[in-house]
Amino acid sequence: MDRYLVVSSDGHAGPPANRYRDYLDPAYRTMFDEHQRALQALILQRREELGGDNSEFIRRWEKLTGGDGGLLAAHDSAARLAILDSEGVTCEVLYPDADVLGTGRVAASPFGSGLGGGAGYEPDVAMAGARAHNRWLADFVAEAPLRRVGLAVVPMLADIDAAVAEIRAAHERGLRGVLIPTRWYDYPAYNDDRYEPVWAACHELGMPVHTHAGSGPTDVVPGSRGFLGIYTAEAGWWGYRPLHVLLWSGVFDRYPSLIYVPTELGSFWVEDLFRKLDAKWDGDHNTAKFGNDNPFREALRDRPSDYLGRNIFIGASTPGAEDMQRRDYRRINDAVMWGNDLPHPEGTFPFTKYWIRTRFADLPDHEARQILGLNAARCYGLDVAALGPIVARVGVTHDEIYGDSHLEAAPF
Amino acid sequence: MDRYLVVSSDGHAGPPANRYRDYLDPAYRTMFDEHQRALQALILQRREELGGDNSEFIRRWEKLTGGDGGLLAAHDSAARLAILDSEGVTCEVLYPDADVLGTGRVAASPFGSGLGGGAGYEPDVAMAGARAHNRWLADFVAEAPLRRVGLAVVPMLADIDAAVAEIRAAHERGLRGVLIPTRWYDYPAYNDDRYEPVWAACHELGMPVHTHAGSGPTDVVPGSRGFLGIYTAEAGWWGYRPLHVLLWSGVFDRYPSLIYVPTELGSFWVEDLFRKLDAKWDGDHNTAKFGNDNPFREALRDRPSDYLGRNIFIGASTPGAEDMQRRDYRRINDAVMWGNDLPHPEGTFPFTKYWIRTRFADLPDHEARQILGLNAARCYGLDVAALGPIVARVGVTHDEIYGDSHLEAAPF
Repeated sequence: MDRYLVVSSDGHAGPPANRYRDYLDPAYRTMFDEHQRALQALILQRREELGGDNSEFIRRWEKLTGGDGGLLAAHDSAARLAILDSEGVTCEVLYPDADVLGTGRVAASPFGSGLGGGAGYEPDVAMAGARAHNRWLADFVAEAPLRRVGLAVVPMLADIDAAVAEIRAAHERGLRGVLIPTRWYDYPAYNDDRYEPVWAACHELGMPVHTHAGSGPTDVVPGSRGFLGIYTAEAGWWGYRPLHVLLWSGVFDRYPSLIYVPTELGSFWVEDLFRKLDAKWDGDHNTAKFGNDNPFREALRDRPSDYLGRNIFIGASTPGAEDMQRRDYRRINDAVMWGNDLPHPEGTFPFTKYWIRTRFADLPDHEARQILGLNAARCYGLDVAALGPIVARVGVTHDEIYGDSHLEAAPF
Repeated sequence: MDRYLVVSSDGHAGPPANRYRDYLDPAYRTMFDEHQRALQALILQRREELGGDNSEFIRRWEKLTGGDGGLLAAHDSAARLAILDSEGVTCEVLYPDADVLGTGRVAASPFGSGLGGGAGYEPDVAMAGARAHNRWLADFVAEAPLRRVGLAVVPMLADIDAAVAEIRAAHERGLRGVLIPTRWYDYPAYNDDRYEPVWAACHELGMPVHTHAGSGPTDVVPGSRGFLGIYTAEAGWWGYRPLHVLLWSGVFDRYPSLIYVPTELGSFWVEDLFRKLDAKWDGDHNTAKFGNDNPFREALRDRPSDYLGRNIFIGASTPGAEDMQRRDYRRINDAVMWGNDLPHPEGTFPFTKYWIRTRFADLPDHEARQILGLNAARCYGLDVAALGPIVARVGVTHDEIYGDSHLEAAPF
């Protein structure tokens, strides 16, 4: 086939505040109105903490993207499909919190229930916000169900029963994965038995579990010396930390078809991490001192890298050159999934075809197909046959990646 | 010169408990005796938590090393020099806590004041233990001052004034660097102003600041599912975390000749870390959204990698193949320092020449010389001229690294 099944493993969606309001349980609407009023002040304060005014960047970005920074596509189905079509993307996975610049054009998942995992909010309030987002998202997915994999936001730390109930409700409405908090903060780590009902439910329902970049340290505080540099140096590690915690906890042996996906962290780190994990399981010299039997092998049925592309997929989002160079170790090529991060300004929009060509022209065709779409199709059980006509109509072409054609592109 | 200046940036030293007792302030000796009695039980318990009995490994290791696992060399000056001489090592940096296997042949730095940074002990008790170790170490260094760089253990978190006093006392006695806790636990992070007197003292006295691998997560607890795998997956990151915290705090701009050395973490991670740090400082696309001015460049005078080999050195200890392969980025070759980890069983002893040949034969001669010794000479201000006769007598030869000679080696 000349055209590629391109799946973005990292998109963001959400409506303006007044739409979220309609999806909230009535008891939380007054609180939501107050929260929305306070939020703009908070955004300005955080912007200040992070280093200043970004209004010039917003102006440039909105001009480049036709006036709205792509944020109409965060909630308008037709606008979103038009972008996907023009950029060669067939299908996408939908996370919350589209407006990272703080323009106010759309709202974040209510009460910090999105990428923030509910941190800083009363548990029932965060879960009410999650329900509102998940209801809205189910309706948004229903407008193009073949092309959208919606992830339920589940701020699960405080109340496991409520989390499981929301996972089941979201599945019932057609959502196909779960976003959990990246950090567990003062709650037990994810290797604790208390989370077992969550993993069991996600396994039973076939819903991959996700974390997404964004959470950082809590012991280095905003406003302290060098905070922004420290935060950006660490956010990647905090983002994929649940991977080795879940893996060594044996959860994938207890729930053999459970899937975990850390997203928007690139993939350059996967090789180094799994070399180390495998070395322990293989029983290297540094391991021998721990005991006569290899305790690592007792903890885990298979070699750590065997779980790549089976129980662990990597949402690499907009890969850099270093991500593409570090694919040789074992099953990495079976696990890495491209993404456009639409409509975040660090994403590939509006130059997706340019960036795909830049990153994939040096890859063998079959590996490009895996990372651009086939791995995601396996991870999410996509109906590739049903997607065929859409691929045939909009998919990125072989020539657009490997040919001599010169894409017009002026990368931002 | 045919022979190389080989400096181990990672050795461990400490005497049996009854020797430490003599160096303790009298008020702490009874407590020390009780602690020593309790310690063996604790070691056994920890061994159990970590996965079982390691007695068979200890028997094999002690047989291989002539009966004592190299632990006589942890405190006997002549025994230590005999090992260095036979293995081609001229000079070494001395950390505490030689007996990682828990054999009881020698004691750890009293009251957890060594690699544990005093965690779990009353601050005054930990500092008393540190004073005892530092006094003993100063005497041990004095037996071969040209060949030994002694690091003062300084559990500094609770009492900064006491820490500065101990740093000055240790310097007075001839110690030439400081080991601080790798983790700050519930104290403020190392970018906090409260630590300023410590950095100022180390800068004034020309004592590089060190952290050493060993500390791991506190929110994943021993005995929980997969703990050992999670610990080993994370210990590296916790070990070098102070690097980016100190760097972005601007401490190297305020104290331009202050040096920080994270040790026994390999060096494979340095390239990836500094690529990311540099990209922020350079102002990449992901940075632009934060503001109109680049806040990273405002936080730091020079590009992050410019601090490598100047304010930041890397104690790579016994490097693996992946450490040697990741040296191409900017000033990494000016910063990485080899080490033997003597007498820890994961070190190169008793096959140091075999491992040096294995890791360095593919490097250009001048880069091998940098990593094997010249970087350490710069980091610690070693008197290379005075060391010349020792190098000429014992140093690893060019032929031992690059020649056709077959070293007898039976790696453990």
